Amino acid sequence: MIETPYLLFLGDAPDQLAAKVAQGIKDWRPENAVGQFRMDGCKADVGLKDMTLAEAKEAGAKTLVIGVANRGGVISQAWKEILIQALGMGFDLASGLHNLLAEEGDLVAASQVNGQTLHDVRVPNVQYPIADGKKRSGKRVLAVGTDCSVGKMYTALALDEAMRAKGMKSTFRATGQTGILITGSGVPLDAVIADFMAGAVEYLTPNNDDDHWDIIEGQGSLFHVSYSGVTLALIHGGQPDALIVCHEPTRTHMRGLPDYTPPPMQAVSDMALALAKVANPACKVVGVSVNTQHMSEDDAVAYLAKVEAEMGLPAVDPFRHGAERLAEALENL
Amino acid sequence: MIETPYLLFLGDAPDQLAAKVAQGIKDWRPENAVGQFRMDGCKADVGLKDMTLAEAKEAGAKTLVIGVANRGGVISQAWKEILIQALGMGFDLASGLHNLLAEEGDLVAASQVNGQTLHDVRVPNVQYPIADGKKRSGKRVLAVGTDCSVGKMYTALALDEAMRAKGMKSTFRATGQTGILITGSGVPLDAVIADFMAGAVEYLTPNNDDDHWDIIEGQGSLFHVSYSGVTLALIHGGQPDALIVCHEPTRTHMRGLPDYTPPPMQAVSDMALALAKVANPACKVVGVSVNTQHMSEDDAVAYLAKVEAEMGLPAVDPFRHGAERLAEALENL
Repeated sequence: MIETPYLLFLGDAPDQLAAKVAQGIKDWRPENAVGQFRMDGCKADVGLKDMTLAEAKEAGAKTLVIGVANRGGVISQAWKEILIQALGMGFDLASGLHNLLAEEGDLVAASQVNGQTLHDVRVPNVQYPIADGKKRSGKRVLAVGTDCSVGKMYTALALDEAMRAKGMKSTFRATGQTGILITGSGVPLDAVIADFMAGAVEYLTPNNDDDHWDIIEGQGSLFHVSYSGVTLALIHGGQPDALIVCHEPTRTHMRGLPDYTPPPMQAVSDMALALAKVANPACKVVGVSVNTQHMSEDDAVAYLAKVEAEMGLPAVDPFRHGAERLAEALENL
Repeated sequence: MIETPYLLFLGDAPDQLAAKVAQGIKDWRPENAVGQFRMDGCKADVGLKDMTLAEAKEAGAKTLVIGVANRGGVISQAWKEILIQALGMGFDLASGLHNLLAEEGDLVAASQVNGQTLHDVRVPNVQYPIADGKKRSGKRVLAVGTDCSVGKMYTALALDEAMRAKGMKSTFRATGQTGILITGSGVPLDAVIADFMAGAVEYLTPNNDDDHWDIIEGQGSLFHVSYSGVTLALIHGGQPDALIVCHEPTRTHMRGLPDYTPPPMQAVSDMALALAKVANPACKVVGVSVNTQHMSEDDAVAYLAKVEAEMGLPAVDPFRHGAERLAEALENL
């Protein structure tokens, strides 16, 4: 658990896209951030108040979150000076970078002076159990994709927001580093040892109130040969009551796999449901989430109507039109 | 790669079953072992010549392989004395124990004196790539099970033997610690980081001659919720041309999961094939391997005939009747 609120470190981001982790925190958990810290030359701005470390401390910030990708995969000397200063002022640090904070001797040393914590959310800090498959109380919904990076995290976060707006009990359960930084906790599933993947998902989504929904962030795709095992561990460890199929219709090949064509939504729906029923025979596919960012509004509306008719399920783009209809589908389940 | 031939260390095994790794080496790769080393009170015997360390060294042994489970998960002081003596005489050590050799300071120190290698086959010693899904030359067959521990490794080893007897080109590809110790190399798939599972299987089964078969040891089951992700990584990383369904018909629940009933063989066949076609559209299910150890000979023969009729595929128990018919099915593919 990362202590909130955060100060978001944007560093010397070369462009807005480099700060997408910070943007995600601002978009989905604005209450978790008191402001942003930008170095000279920073080209990103997530629209929070610019603060010095001292101002953020005064405003109550507990953790400096690295909300930006580092150039060349290295934590630069310019960043280091600020990170060490932050540790000296009592901030914890949190990062999803490949270059771990814990691998940097000077950061480790600085953190030890006053006992600050370095959170590297890309690697597990828990010894997860082996999954036992026992039925758990509470309800769970999982986003499954036709491919990687089609909007599963966005769908889950938007669904969480829509469910809360309706007064439903829900918790977004992060399974990747961006989601973990946004919410302050979760499981970095792609970094878990194979034998413990499904157990990590069980650990993430424990017994809960009968009317509480865990909204589990999906990863990969059953049809993406590089990561499909991670997806299946989510399906079996999560024992979902409901699945939402996520799709990006303009993609011509699977992400990173030029020889592989994205599967039809119906094939993903059928395969995911058949596998989900092993862990939860009552599981149902309740809706479709389409990422229409590369389509005009008219094309998007027409496409969603067609999908809805073909699949007999509510089909929405939660970014364009909100996730209310998906929340309703869960409410009616 | 573990250097052969081995001396098999049976230690103070309390019974024959405790020495099943050594037995597997003796059964499947007798040419890899010059003899066995038994301590006072050892209750196991795999039928190799008893040797002292000096005799084994004289016979050309390069590696002392721990072919026995350790009591209580701890490498005892009595073992240590022999292991350290072996290192001093120039043996490498190899082990599949949970308690790693590399975690024992005195073994590490002894190995460094003359530069001997400690092989802990339970943990990867390679940084595997992320799978790229590219079509590879050569052919691959994968054993898929209705459950864990139904005889997938045995089936693969028996198939390898039968194919060689027919003059076919084949290589058994180990994916678990016992298989790795038997053959001297492989990938400990259950210990690989999630993101790299399928890539590890690609690494294990590289391009080969067009008429060469990799026989890939299966793990887990698509229907075993604890380990199904590992199974799917094998299916997608292995891009098999052929699948063999493995089953143990007397099991009443999934191994370690009292609430889960083993699936019908046909369901496993259909699901595995549908998923395998993502990576290799030409994949076929070619046969069934049934572990009939808990059935009489008559019952086994009748059961196999029934399965063969129902599934329209050769169904054999490779332990009772050999794997020739499975090898033929691959030859005819």
